[in-house]
This record gives sequence, structure tokens and C-alpha cells, in this order.
Amino acid sequence: MSALVLLTPDAPDGRIADPEAPQLLVTDLGVVRGDGIFETLLAVGGRPLQLEAHLDRLASSAEALDLTLPDGAHWRAAIETGLAEFARRHGDGEAMIRLVGTRGVDAAGPPTCWVYLQPVPAGNRELRDRGLDVVLLDRGYSSEAASVAPWLLLGSKTTSYAVNMAALRYAHRQGADDAVFVSSDGRVLEGPTSTVLIARTRDGVRELVTPLLRSGILAGTTQGALFATAEPAGWQLGYGPLTPEDLIGNDGVWLASSVRLLAPIRSVDGRQIPVSAELTDELTELLLTATRR
Amino acid sequence: MSALVLLTPDAPDGRIADPEAPQLLVTDLGVVRGDGIFETLLAVGGRPLQLEAHLDRLASSAEALDLTLPDGAHWRAAIETGLAEFARRHGDGEAMIRLVGTRGVDAAGPPTCWVYLQPVPAGNRELRDRGLDVVLLDRGYSSEAASVAPWLLLGSKTTSYAVNMAALRYAHRQGADDAVFVSSDGRVLEGPTSTVLIARTRDGVRELVTPLLRSGILAGTTQGALFATAEPAGWQLGYGPLTPEDLIGNDGVWLASSVRLLAPIRSVDGRQIPVSAELTDELTELLLTATRR
Repeated sequence: MSALVLLTPDAPDGRIADPEAPQLLVTDLGVVRGDGIFETLLAVGGRPLQLEAHLDRLASSAEALDLTLPDGAHWRAAIETGLAEFARRHGDGEAMIRLVGTRGVDAAGPPTCWVYLQPVPAGNRELRDRGLDVVLLDRGYSSEAASVAPWLLLGSKTTSYAVNMAALRYAHRQGADDAVFVSSDGRVLEGPTSTVLIARTRDGVRELVTPLLRSGILAGTTQGALFATAEPAGWQLGYGPLTPEDLIGNDGVWLASSVRLLAPIRSVDGRQIPVSAELTDELTELLLTATRR
Repeated sequence: MSALVLLTPDAPDGRIADPEAPQLLVTDLGVVRGDGIFETLLAVGGRPLQLEAHLDRLASSAEALDLTLPDGAHWRAAIETGLAEFARRHGDGEAMIRLVGTRGVDAAGPPTCWVYLQPVPAGNRELRDRGLDVVLLDRGYSSEAASVAPWLLLGSKTTSYAVNMAALRYAHRQGADDAVFVSSDGRVLEGPTSTVLIARTRDGVRELVTPLLRSGILAGTTQGALFATAEPAGWQLGYGPLTPEDLIGNDGVWLASSVRLLAPIRSVDGRQIPVSAELTDELTELLLTATRR
């Protein structure tokens, strides 16, 4: 039900492997130390969306981790091989593609790299229609930490996601669907697997605002794609700082991510906030225009 | 050169597997999300040291991650099997044992668990003799974060160790051997893979002091073992808070860990501090008394 392409020193453009068979050693540093990076992207009609933005972010995460990964051409070739294999098995349906690169078994040796493709998980988009209940969770870091402490890897998409997963479990136990991280100095940061996006109107001008990148969040590829088409469509663009109050008192808030796309938030810590299906549709249309380019 | 025992639903007490062959799926959540926990311990003469303390900490990490792992009896059986296999290959030398439990492929399914044994890596103990140069690195978290934000998993030994590894790389690039994390409010926390331990004399009484556990650090099994024998030997025991100044102005500072045991620090951010081979020997002897029990 899925497809796997391994990028190895012998097959730098990737070779098809069995995703149902074990492929990784128990000594891989990606496994025992979470010492790796990843990207998740969506492919529609056999075409990966925002591929270059994802490859750029993969390269930037690799640099932050001093990880030497195959260059973009190899990843592109492996993704193409994977998409062809996926299409043979599933037809032309949407695919969720995961790119992973770990430090491998030996820090001095080759990294372990693969492209994994699977159908988009069911239920992933239901919440997109009904709106998300979210809780605000303290991320523990100040919004200044990223700029003074590069070893914290803030802004890198590492496979060390245990805290992100724990935050989601905590949110679910509170009856919420998702979480939004807040810095120790009270800035809205990001979701565990998404970027925060706010729509507001100032002096009659419609604005899309996302938190400051330098506050230690991931550069959102979906948010980036949306911004690129929203501006020529008349939206003013803004970059935080945002506080929790900004989530409450504006025209709408969304969590943006590569597979779920734009999911509106309908409540924050139990407090209802405006949800506009029209705005979600309008922004999603702009986003899809961007991603189809 | 190593041994591997997998704990599976079919073989809850473990079955020997090939450590040189792939054993893990690329979809394991331990791999792609760092969603797992681990322990590392030393075995001497076929006997794992501080086994119960490590199993207790494994259980406590599992609880923090809502991870249902095999109980201690299964781990003990698997470790025994692994040690016998290791001895067949290596004789009765020291072994480094790693216990790992991940969330597995499906959060609703069984975890992925294994025991891996290898010879103690060469060079691991050289630094123990000459003393460590360390740099202080901001951990980004306040020493209060652990008590208010359980989703940060502070105090749990997860496989999401990318920050710990990045901190070590950063330290090495500065020409240092290791790092000591400091909280955003200026408390000494721990090393990326070790516990901080200070010896000092107050009013003629010798004290061993380690940072406060509730500041969000791992409970050190080595420090715990040492404390248990140091007290009857006349040492007074103390628990932080400690500041960077405490690293400078006392009788000695060590990084304690399960395999390297007690490694003295000889400089902090380039500033030399007292190193007493006699104290290291005395404390190591106390530690070994404890671990041999």
C-alpha cells in the first residue's frame, strides 16, 4: 500500500525497496538518537507540490545538523522513481511523500536516506472542514533562543519529534484536536506539525500574518506558497510577533501544513473564535494556485 | 562484533537476531518521529550494573511518553539472553548494553523493543583519565519548565536526542570534549549524556552535590549509585540548585554516566578548575562498590 526508494552510495538516484520489509539497522543514529531530518509533502496527479521549497528546507536542516545529504538532483530522481512505483500500485491518487535522511550507522560514513510514499491518511482532512479545537502549550523556549543557541536546532525539521508528539497526545487528552506552541515570553510560535496563519483587517486592508521566523519556528512551505499568491491577489503580508490575543480577536486563524493544507481553528483553550468557510475557501484556492504552478 | 535480542509479541522474553541485518521498518515511529526511549548500561563479567535503576528509569520514561512496554521480567530475560550471546562471541569482556523501546509502526500496535550489546567503544575512557574540557551551553528551558509543561518530556530519556548530539558537535567545534547545559535562568543542569556532580568542603564536611532533579534533568543512575555508598562512607549529599560559579570554585566536578563512569572536568569555558586524581579514584571506588552489589 506504499512505495519505498532508498538512496544509497551504490544507487544515488535511488532504488525501489520493499516498504513492508525491515530496511534499517538498530544501530542507525537516526533510530537511537533521533539524529536525522525529514520533509513531508503532497503529490497530486503524480506531481509533488512545493518540491523545491521542501528540498531547500531539507538542505537547510541538513546544514544545521552538519549532515551531508545527497543533493537535490538525487532526491528529485528518487521521488520520481517513487511516484512511478506508487502510481503502478495505486493509480494517480494523491500521495503523501516523506523524505528522510539520518546520520547513518557511523557519523563518519554515509547517511541513511529514503523516500517513502503512501496514500493520504484517511480522516486527515475531516478536521479541515469542521475546524480545529486547539490548546496553547508552552514550548519552554524564549522567542530569542533560536538566535543565541544554534545547538537547539530550532527551525530545523529533525526526526527528534518526541516533544511534538507528546504535545499532540496532551492536546488530545484535553479533548482538543491540535496544539499551538507559545514561547516562554508569550509569543505564538507554531503547531507541533503546522504553521500558524492569521487573517485580519486593518483600516480596511486585509492582512495575512504569520509568526516571526526568527522566533525559532520552522519556515512553513505551505504558508510560503500561500503568501506568494496572496500578495498579488491584494492581501498585505505580515510577520509576527503574535500573542495569544491575536488568535482570538481577528478574522480567522489556520494551521497550515503540507498534507492537511489550511485547517481553520474554531476554538483556542475552549474559547470560540470566528471561523469563515468563505475565507478558508478563498485562501485554499490561492494556495492551490500556488502549489499547482 | 555485537549481539541483538528483539522483544516481540511472539517472543516476549526476546529472540536473538542478526545485528548486522536490517531489523526496522522505515515507518517505525521511533525512526521518523524519535518517538521512543532508551537506556544505556554497562555489564562487567556478564553482570549488568545498576540494572534495576535502569529498568526503573525506562519504565518512568515509558510512562511519560504513554508508551506501553514489556515489563521488567521480559527485559531482564532478554538482557540475559543477550549477555550469553555476547559472551559466546567476545568472552567475558565488558559490554555496553542499550535497551530501546519505540512506539512501533502503529501507535495502536505493539512497540518495537530490543536489547543491543557491543564492546565498550575504544577511547571512551581516555578522557576519564586526562579530564574534560567543557563548554557551558544554554538549554533554552527555565529550570521551572519541567514542572509546568510535562509535554516537554524533561527528565525522560527519549530517543529524540538531536539537540544533545548537536550540543556535543558544537562543543567539539569549540575544541572542547563535552558540554554542560545551563537553564535559561542560570542553573547548571546536566551534560548531553551525563549527570553533573560536584565535590566541595563546607565547615570541614565533605559534600557531593548534584543539580536539583526537578530542574528538568534525567535522574542519573550512576550518580544515584554513588550517592548510595558515599553517604555511609562519610560524604554529605546535596541537591542543587547549582550555578556555573559552583563549577569553578569547589574541590572537583565530574560528569557521571553509565559507561564512562566518573570523568573529571578540568576546564569550563577555558577556565581551569581543580582536578584531583585522588578524589576521582576515591569516588570511583565508592561507585564500583555500589555497582558491584
